[in-house]
Amino acid sequence: MVANSEFFMNLALKEAWKYQGLTYPNPAVGCCVVSESGAILSVEAHKKAGLPHAEVEALKSAYFKLTNDEFILKLTNSADIHKYLIQNHNGIFKNCSVYTTLEPCSHIGKTPSCADLLSLLSIKKVYVGALDTNPEAACGNKKLLDADIEIQNGVLEAKCKELLYPFERWSKDKFVFFKWAQRLNGTYDGGIITSKESRKNVHDMRDKCDLLVIGGESVRIDRPTLDARLVDGKAPDILIYSRKSEFDKTIPLFKVEGRKVIISDNLDIIQKYKNIMIEGGANMFEATRDIVDRYLCYIAPKVGGSKVFNTNIEEFEILNILQDDKDIIMWLSSRQLIDEHNLG
Amino acid sequence: MVANSEFFMNLALKEAWKYQGLTYPNPAVGCCVVSESGAILSVEAHKKAGLPHAEVEALKSAYFKLTNDEFILKLTNSADIHKYLIQNHNGIFKNCSVYTTLEPCSHIGKTPSCADLLSLLSIKKVYVGALDTNPEAACGNKKLLDADIEIQNGVLEAKCKELLYPFERWSKDKFVFFKWAQRLNGTYDGGIITSKESRKNVHDMRDKCDLLVIGGESVRIDRPTLDARLVDGKAPDILIYSRKSEFDKTIPLFKVEGRKVIISDNLDIIQKYKNIMIEGGANMFEATRDIVDRYLCYIAPKVGGSKVFNTNIEEFEILNILQDDKDIIMWLSSRQLIDEHNLG
Ligand SMILES: [Zn+2]
Ligand SMILES: [Zn+2]
Repeated sequence: MVANSEFFMNLALKEAWKYQGLTYPNPAVGCCVVSESGAILSVEAHKKAGLPHAEVEALKSAYFKLTNDEFILKLTNSADIHKYLIQNHNGIFKNCSVYTTLEPCSHIGKTPSCADLLSLLSIKKVYVGALDTNPEAACGNKKLLDADIEIQNGVLEAKCKELLYPFERWSKDKFVFFKWAQRLNGTYDGGIITSKESRKNVHDMRDKCDLLVIGGESVRIDRPTLDARLVDGKAPDILIYSRKSEFDKTIPLFKVEGRKVIISDNLDIIQKYKNIMIEGGANMFEATRDIVDRYLCYIAPKVGGSKVFNTNIEEFEILNILQDDKDIIMWLSSRQLIDEHNLG
Repeated sequence: MVANSEFFMNLALKEAWKYQGLTYPNPAVGCCVVSESGAILSVEAHKKAGLPHAEVEALKSAYFKLTNDEFILKLTNSADIHKYLIQNHNGIFKNCSVYTTLEPCSHIGKTPSCADLLSLLSIKKVYVGALDTNPEAACGNKKLLDADIEIQNGVLEAKCKELLYPFERWSKDKFVFFKWAQRLNGTYDGGIITSKESRKNVHDMRDKCDLLVIGGESVRIDRPTLDARLVDGKAPDILIYSRKSEFDKTIPLFKVEGRKVIISDNLDIIQKYKNIMIEGGANMFEATRDIVDRYLCYIAPKVGGSKVFNTNIEEFEILNILQDDKDIIMWLSSRQLIDEHNLG
């Protein structure tokens, strides 16, 4: 194993994937700051809207590592960190490199732009994974060049584009993902399967979704709530995909305030939403094959149970594996979709 | 994420796990060399018996990274690398740190000891994961101290002991692991499931095993060869665990030369072997629960098929996840075994 630019970009990627699906209306981005001699000063990610961008988080951590100035650790607001870094950096970043999965933003909105910050801190070189195709944020590279910062584009570009893919689908149209949880041996019956941490992650996803699609049978059998209570989040609207429209309205999901529940035998309503999570078993999997962009699979390291996910053969590409304290959280794409994507 | 001593030890651990099960009669060991300023100079592992120890591989790579002296890349024999490093190091390692998952060996056998090499190269500090309990190799730390090298013991100690566990079981008595391959949804019927790379890894494991245990039903249905042809390795002896002793002797496994095939309705013969792989489905899993030390699971990222691994509930701890170009290779222990281990 060699600690080259791909190694550093990969650290940024792994960190960013932890927050995949949680950063809307921003993309998931990771950033790694490396010293002149090749020491890793920080690896950070953008965690959610309202928190600093990945570059700002990473520069903050790197600043602390280089200076031991604890004052910066108290700053959480992006504008404050920008300001503090600009006033106190004292040239310490001048031989540092920054690895960022996405071209630094150039747009000055609620906070200053990352491209400006990198320029003002006199970063030596910025390694960029994917270029920003969003016209409002793009041209970060140009700002960097104007400030005489070296740029190397395309480091692990395919992987960085993959990280960005849900956000890009979401911005251009909508992002649809199919989520399921299972034991190692494929079963999903018999009570709670995954760890509390995994379930919190699901609730965090729900909080960021505007529509959750679920099969009628699951609703009748499991009588779920389908909210985001584990993270104090908002509950998404629900589409119950079912031929029968009669449901026992004492099922908890109907009682969650501020949510719309749609019962339908087709998926057309999806067109009105932007970030759509589908939960279900083999039937839902088959019914939604053509509209799903990505798959999200939670695996609890257990065997046992008996009810499994039987379906036609489908091959996936593993996009990322995250291991929480107990379970595996895995993002996948169908191989077929990947091929179409590559042709496009 | 902070690049501290645990981060570097973790890199060494991840590298070593790639060769878990392949290093007998040596343990799986990983090593990471870090410069004075904290740059990663190399991460290497011991790959198999006869090849250099992890520390030697890592020092060789680090030497090349620091000097660009390509001559050392031609050296593959451990004694040659020792000699070349000692003659040419020129003090370049004097502020470097070495992270090794296992206390460096002190035993001078076919090759000089790693503790001597580290001392002669004037390494500044050695971070050790687990102490060596093998009396022939132990006391590496003492040699380092005598050479005025700083030592920090116990870095990610539990993880480093876990890496070492199969070797320790093997040296004291025997190591028994249960291996299975499946699709994501738990199925294992319908032809070849895993990638060529995963199957090569299985053959590599078989080459290092002395006994392979398999159920009678699998033999009758799959008519397997159970050799190590994908890596030109030796085929292990076979125990067919079966109540019926009649088998069609044209099944390929009976025709592999130099192998013993035992057919028995009990597992007693296992006592005569050291490194034992069990392959099978739910029945073998149940029958061998009490004698299995660790589990090895190959997961192909596919859904489909229908035959699954139904069994009583068992919870695992994920010890390591390795992702090859397609599949997941995962080492597991049962939570029950871990608890016993912790009590011991
Ligand atoms: Zn930004
Ligand atoms: Zn050694």
